[in-house]
Amino acid sequence: MQRARLRELGISIGTMEPGPNNAITDVDGVLVGHATVIRDAPSMARTGVTVILPRKGEISRDHSLGGFEALNGVGEMTGLLWLEETGLMSAPIALTNTHQVGLVRDILVEHFAPYGGWSYDLPIVSETWDGYLNDIHTFPLERQHVLKAISSAHTGIVEEGNVGGGTGTVCHEFKGGIGTSSRVVQYQGENYIVGALVQANHGSREDLRVNGAPVGKHIGTDAFPPPWSQTVAAGSIVTVLATDAPLSSLQCKRLARRGIIGFARAGGAGHHGSGDLFLAFTTYHHLPAQPQEPMDIRMLPHSHLNPFFQAAAEAVEEAILNSLTSAETMTGYHGRVAHAIPLDQLVEIVNRYSS
Amino acid sequence: MQRARLRELGISIGTMEPGPNNAITDVDGVLVGHATVIRDAPSMARTGVTVILPRKGEISRDHSLGGFEALNGVGEMTGLLWLEETGLMSAPIALTNTHQVGLVRDILVEHFAPYGGWSYDLPIVSETWDGYLNDIHTFPLERQHVLKAISSAHTGIVEEGNVGGGTGTVCHEFKGGIGTSSRVVQYQGENYIVGALVQANHGSREDLRVNGAPVGKHIGTDAFPPPWSQTVAAGSIVTVLATDAPLSSLQCKRLARRGIIGFARAGGAGHHGSGDLFLAFTTYHHLPAQPQEPMDIRMLPHSHLNPFFQAAAEAVEEAILNSLTSAETMTGYHGRVAHAIPLDQLVEIVNRYSS
Amino acid sequence: MQRARLRELGISIGTMEPGPNNAITDVDGVLVGHATVIRDAPSMARTGVTVILPRKGEISRDHSLGGFEALNGVGEMTGLLWLEETGLMSAPIALTNTHQVGLVRDILVEHFAPYGGWSYDLPIVSETWDGYLNDIHTFPLERQHVLKAISSAHTGIVEEGNVGGGTGTVCHEFKGGIGTSSRVVQYQGENYIVGALVQANHGSREDLRVNGAPVGKHIGTDAFPPPWSQTVAAGSIVTVLATDAPLSSLQCKRLARRGIIGFARAGGAGHHGSGDLFLAFTTYHHLPAQPQEPMDIRMLPHSHLNPFFQAAAEAVEEAILNSLTSAETMTGYHGRVAHAIPLDQLVEIVNRYSS
Amino acid sequence: MQRARLRELGISIGTMEPGPNNAITDVDGVLVGHATVIRDAPSMARTGVTVILPRKGEISRDHSLGGFEALNGVGEMTGLLWLEETGLMSAPIALTNTHQVGLVRDILVEHFAPYGGWSYDLPIVSETWDGYLNDIHTFPLERQHVLKAISSAHTGIVEEGNVGGGTGTVCHEFKGGIGTSSRVVQYQGENYIVGALVQANHGSREDLRVNGAPVGKHIGTDAFPPPWSQTVAAGSIVTVLATDAPLSSLQCKRLARRGIIGFARAGGAGHHGSGDLFLAFTTYHHLPAQPQEPMDIRMLPHSHLNPFFQAAAEAVEEAILNSLTSAETMTGYHGRVAHAIPLDQLVEIVNRYSS
Repeated sequence: MQRARLRELGISIGTMEPGPNNAITDVDGVLVGHATVIRDAPSMARTGVTVILPRKGEISRDHSLGGFEALNGVGEMTGLLWLEETGLMSAPIALTNTHQVGLVRDILVEHFAPYGGWSYDLPIVSETWDGYLNDIHTFPLERQHVLKAISSAHTGIVEEGNVGGGTGTVCHEFKGGIGTSSRVVQYQGENYIVGALVQANHGSREDLRVNGAPVGKHIGTDAFPPPWSQTVAAGSIVTVLATDAPLSSLQCKRLARRGIIGFARAGGAGHHGSGDLFLAFTTYHHLPAQPQEPMDIRMLPHSHLNPFFQAAAEAVEEAILNSLTSAETMTGYHGRVAHAIPLDQLVEIVNRYSS
Repeated sequence: MQRARLRELGISIGTMEPGPNNAITDVDGVLVGHATVIRDAPSMARTGVTVILPRKGEISRDHSLGGFEALNGVGEMTGLLWLEETGLMSAPIALTNTHQVGLVRDILVEHFAPYGGWSYDLPIVSETWDGYLNDIHTFPLERQHVLKAISSAHTGIVEEGNVGGGTGTVCHEFKGGIGTSSRVVQYQGENYIVGALVQANHGSREDLRVNGAPVGKHIGTDAFPPPWSQTVAAGSIVTVLATDAPLSSLQCKRLARRGIIGFARAGGAGHHGSGDLFLAFTTYHHLPAQPQEPMDIRMLPHSHLNPFFQAAAEAVEEAILNSLTSAETMTGYHGRVAHAIPLDQLVEIVNRYSS
Repeated sequence: MQRARLRELGISIGTMEPGPNNAITDVDGVLVGHATVIRDAPSMARTGVTVILPRKGEISRDHSLGGFEALNGVGEMTGLLWLEETGLMSAPIALTNTHQVGLVRDILVEHFAPYGGWSYDLPIVSETWDGYLNDIHTFPLERQHVLKAISSAHTGIVEEGNVGGGTGTVCHEFKGGIGTSSRVVQYQGENYIVGALVQANHGSREDLRVNGAPVGKHIGTDAFPPPWSQTVAAGSIVTVLATDAPLSSLQCKRLARRGIIGFARAGGAGHHGSGDLFLAFTTYHHLPAQPQEPMDIRMLPHSHLNPFFQAAAEAVEEAILNSLTSAETMTGYHGRVAHAIPLDQLVEIVNRYSS
Repeated sequence: MQRARLRELGISIGTMEPGPNNAITDVDGVLVGHATVIRDAPSMARTGVTVILPRKGEISRDHSLGGFEALNGVGEMTGLLWLEETGLMSAPIALTNTHQVGLVRDILVEHFAPYGGWSYDLPIVSETWDGYLNDIHTFPLERQHVLKAISSAHTGIVEEGNVGGGTGTVCHEFKGGIGTSSRVVQYQGENYIVGALVQANHGSREDLRVNGAPVGKHIGTDAFPPPWSQTVAAGSIVTVLATDAPLSSLQCKRLARRGIIGFARAGGAGHHGSGDLFLAFTTYHHLPAQPQEPMDIRMLPHSHLNPFFQAAAEAVEEAILNSLTSAETMTGYHGRVAHAIPLDQLVEIVNRYSS
């Protein structure tokens, strides 16, 4: 059976409609680019980098707002001190492997920091640990890869599965990777988008649920063993939520927290070793990098946020599942194999539970 | 059909075993007491107070450690500044209605603050808003009720449903209330308990799930309407987790966060108006209120916490469901009716999804 | 020598001009009211309550924004979960003694929560421990006192020293109390006010500085002993900053943090037992309690905040010193005496250091 | 007049005694190494990196505890999510320029992450912006410099002023740099050390105070102009506190906060553009990277912390001043000049105010 997105299997999460591409890029101006590094020599590389460029990369000059929450802070995300101090979303985002956050971070500074003046730039770079499949200690990601991810960033369809920062990840003990999804929120005559992108590298097999159905319990590790002999229950998930709705920075933080709901519904447990990080930003606002005048920030009534919260939860849940259904079986470091989730069995189990 | 706990219906949550009473009181020394105020005159009162007394109330003299997390901070919990500054669990806990947190708080100070010396006491009092069924603006809780809850606190079986602070609550648009559950964690030859108690006043009907089965979708609001005409998606849940395991204060905070997982699995969404608060404490440590010497605090390896995290998630999920299955239909303020969840339908739906 | 405000002694803090009353009430619409309880029987009471009513008490219906920071969270302040979750300043503020926070809190709910509808109210009530001079275990504050503080709240001159919540406080081992100050910030052709009010109950004698001069070292505890025999270095300070400038909630939080600067310059050290709490709010915004439409929130460029930050630091520093220079010697519980700082010596020392 | 440390000028801060070297290295096992990059071609480089290696670099295998506080989060510090989640101090620390945090971070991973197994490492790398004197956009720091800083790390005397990450910094509009100081805390028959190291790049001239004396007001910018024509009030300070006292992670956080007190007393204001970051760790504990058993963590009674808090405040205040008195005048990018503070005038002013 061909790899597919969850909806192509006839399964949809929640009750809200997705955007045109069911992707974070449904938020106007949000670009996604991947560089995927798969090679067997000189070292076994199964890694990459995914960039998310709000405002087509112009976010460093034309700021907006964002917020963050960690369910479990066993991980790294640069740029958070600034984000939490000012509420400003002012930098590009990248996701990569744990050991090469720095490389990516400095290249983003170089590429995006407005040259001249007293400017600075504090990019948001996060990571998951792909060392089961990737020989992470050889630092295989290179400068050229980061530049390629930037230059190839585009709107429209987002490649999922074994790409970019998700190349070597493992999710619910199946092959994971990058996944995305979106929802349309109808609010006072306008259509807003809430989009999610995840780099999914977390979870136990037995906890995996699809629409409530305990898929992971029924597709056991005997038939599809994980790439490790001892259950480690480590891993991490980085979740990025984007919207074009007029949210304040605190409201972005609140939105980020609802990513946890979707994560938990798909079976996320917050294991100790799992850095479960949730970032949310809006593109609604246009704030100059060096403002000279007071600015008017539009925000929704807090009591009107529930549909946006629901959209965030649904999009994250579906993005995680898309990462699983899109990723293909991969063999990597030390010959370890991460199996793709078998789609026929997944469909069968979900259907059984839906009757 | 008699009201019952979830397990009496043949349904259990997760894979771990509960403690002897499947209650927060399975943690040695943790007492729970309720005062329930149900009367129709002079005002329509459907409220109460629930106290949780770690160390049989001696916690003010014999401290331990605790931690806290808010998924959604639309609510009140006193005592948090101290808890987060010092990590010390040093005060009793009470749960009541939103408007009378202060009354309860001061009585706890009076009752438990060590008299004499330079002592002070910062009790932990939290709340949910029971104003649908309770004429909350008449402040019906009285001093005598708080004293009664304290004096009646006991170990063993915890009364659930329409009692104490949960007397007037509504959960997933059914009658909610107090619920509790516990899990046994086997760790290095020892049995530890993780217990949860919730005051459940949150959630939408359509989101309610029992073991993944979408019970709320199948028991619609047409047959069992909520006590309001317009869906408000407000409400709150206060969750208290207790354990006797040797956790540090940060580990208690981590444990508290896993309550969110159980909450989400049962259908919690984190609606705007819902104060979703999670407190966790351990009774393991014995720290004098006025220590004169350095103290040795035992903590588990962080990497060994996953079974405790799982226990917290399972206990919270089951505690919420116990609040629902235990609570009886209640008519209150302005004649509003909060229906008990029909247990036969619940069982039928869960069974259908488990086949 | 008559008690006096610092400026009446010819001493001013910093470089910015104060507002017309050099008080928090210089922020338009901010009312302050005190109830002072001084009596010797049936118990020795030296306590009270101070209310700060933004928007002349209408803040519960007509919200604005605020933020909070704790330098040291050994204390209580209710209402913070809501403030930090939403950024909304939506409730009155009160300061009282540690044991009676609850009494004050519930009366504020009763008085200010909009009756009817699904409304709720989460007042901000904080405290310092006045148990050296006040027989705090007798809970001397009564309902009538809280109502009196509310009804007597007024604009204009704020009574300082041994009044309201500051009646029984001790600051830098002299008699402390309530103090206030303000600064005018000229910004883009507008005059904005930053005002501070403190309930000062903190600090060691030797640390006290006035404009950098080590006043506390020169007015030793031999001549003016503290009301305790053993140095305890406990106590607390609650600081409330108000402004009419267009700040976001995160900017209010940033402003609150600058209160720490003024506190430290006057000699604050953040002793363990001292709850050093800093709240800031703006009255600029007018946000309905139940908004139906998106709202536009004006905020200043973050890079323009320095004059406001400076104003906050100066106002807090001067407010602390005003509490000292205004407070009179008080004898209280167990005959303990808290001495007023001798103004002639203070002036002499400061002058010596300024030459 | 030769550059000198503050105490060599006859000026000491506070009342506590410094350790043998009056440096952070007085904490046993703490190494400090610098790499200083000063060159005029091909680009004008005035930058560097300073490493602080707790446990002689073995901290990645033999963990301890730490905590963090931001007075103003306009800056970067990696590794914080892990630190705040677990309380573990488990990685080396480095300070460098804003644009090259990533380079340093990845090299620390490479150098210190235990190879083999499922290990990872989340180093703590922070920064200040040295772009006035350093052509920061040319990214002048290289791999070899980072390795040199590591290999040259040593105990004993710490070079101060224009070295390492402080090479190109500006403090209170004089030439700043690296500064260090320490205090001995006598506690229950033991001598403990609290040491501070700062990379000082913050502050306005007029705010600078030495022991309360307004030195900055008297040494005006007319005689010693800053390296910019327009006052920018930006800059940052990274403060690292080390101790060998038995503190819990929350107590380390509390210690970090007292750095703010010292910072404020020296004239720190928390300007918007200034990332004012405070890290504290203890070397007391020895926790294996992969523990298999519960561990006993010694902590002091919170109520005994005041001398440690005072030590932290004094050490930070003196470290800032040492950075100033040690740094020499530097000419850099675009010919800008940062003047060394004139020591004779400094001494004269302080003496005048001390009489």
